[in-house]
Amino acid sequence: QNTFPKGTGLSSSGSGFAALTIAATKAIGLALSERELSILARQGSGTACRCVCGGIVEWKDGETSETSYSESIFPAGYWEVRDVVAVVDEGKKLVSSTSGHALAKTSLFYKERLANIKTKLEQVRQAIKIKDFDKLGLVEGEALEFHSILLTSEPPMIAWYPGTIEVMLAVWEMRREGIKAYFTINTGFNVHVLTTPEFESIVKERLDKLSLVVKTISAKVGEKPSELKTHLF
Amino acid sequence: QNTFPKGTGLSSSGSGFAALTIAATKAIGLALSERELSILARQGSGTACRCVCGGIVEWKDGETSETSYSESIFPAGYWEVRDVVAVVDEGKKLVSSTSGHALAKTSLFYKERLANIKTKLEQVRQAIKIKDFDKLGLVEGEALEFHSILLTSEPPMIAWYPGTIEVMLAVWEMRREGIKAYFTINTGFNVHVLTTPEFESIVKERLDKLSLVVKTISAKVGEKPSELKTHLF
Repeated sequence: QNTFPKGTGLSSSGSGFAALTIAATKAIGLALSERELSILARQGSGTACRCVCGGIVEWKDGETSETSYSESIFPAGYWEVRDVVAVVDEGKKLVSSTSGHALAKTSLFYKERLANIKTKLEQVRQAIKIKDFDKLGLVEGEALEFHSILLTSEPPMIAWYPGTIEVMLAVWEMRREGIKAYFTINTGFNVHVLTTPEFESIVKERLDKLSLVVKTISAKVGEKPSELKTHLF
Repeated sequence: QNTFPKGTGLSSSGSGFAALTIAATKAIGLALSERELSILARQGSGTACRCVCGGIVEWKDGETSETSYSESIFPAGYWEVRDVVAVVDEGKKLVSSTSGHALAKTSLFYKERLANIKTKLEQVRQAIKIKDFDKLGLVEGEALEFHSILLTSEPPMIAWYPGTIEVMLAVWEMRREGIKAYFTINTGFNVHVLTTPEFESIVKERLDKLSLVVKTISAKVGEKPSELKTHLF
């Protein structure tokens, strides 16, 4: 059972395939390690390889199925970061992640982006390690860079909805007022607004007020998937 | 007298400085050529160098004040292209063109863009020459590329408003239905929707219906500025 909104760029397929992988391997009596589960889950949906792990997770940049997997780099309680998801539309994405990945290579800017991504990843790791929230804010520029690749693909892709822009501008407005908040966007149009526990309620309140925001979902760094012994259906 | 909305990225400063240049030089008894007027107008606002010319105008990519000027490459009646401007906000731009230009150089993608711009310009010239409206549609990808440079500047700039996205997606929707329309965006958030005379009224009607569009302004390829002998005020 997956209670996550599907096809909106909030990684519903990731959570779904992670749950399926764990349930199916247990059901047939396999006792896989976290790495083995991650490798297997990735076959269903790339991002699922992250969802079998708990805490703050890094997806290793491998070239093969055996080397492209995720692992927890910090436990769930390591750093209290909040994610207020602004849902601006509950409809499906215009472009699937899979076709997006294929198209990205046609962007004039793709190579330049690739050449710089390792440095950026190291900066994010470092920001988490020293728990520097403003440094972590570089994920915002990263999201804009990623979407620029979509915008400059051939043909171009606009993954955003009007509300996406409304939320992004609102986050900048909040920051000008001293509220700690940075946005990031996956492949869809809904916006993740990262904040600290101290600012979570004001961020949620401000986002809920926006005319194009349908609802907000507050989340924090989660534990790894847990096994239920009761029937869901 | 400038009746154009100011500071919204619709080149109001261009039309204003063009009018001022022509009026002022005539008032002091100078009889400048179009090129001389263009060079002079550019000192007031870059884009003004285009507004002293009539028809379809190209701004020459010069390195000095003497070589950076505009000239008419086709007369106004050469090709009937329409521009339905979708005004999504009448407020001011968040970032001025001048500060935008300065920031653009900080984008990771700036050099790559520059390396490809001459080819693109030649393609646009060719599209106009052979009056191929769909080829001219490459201005759409160009607008997205330009805005990607803003999005990836340091710090990043979002020039768009929610309505900007609504209009862009609506244009793609129209094209899927066979309506000839391509968008382009200058430095602001309002959207120029290029179309042919045949589709002008349906494009205007569709844009007027959008929830985030304040109003539309229909325009066509204009003649050069004309001199009025009556008082405006």
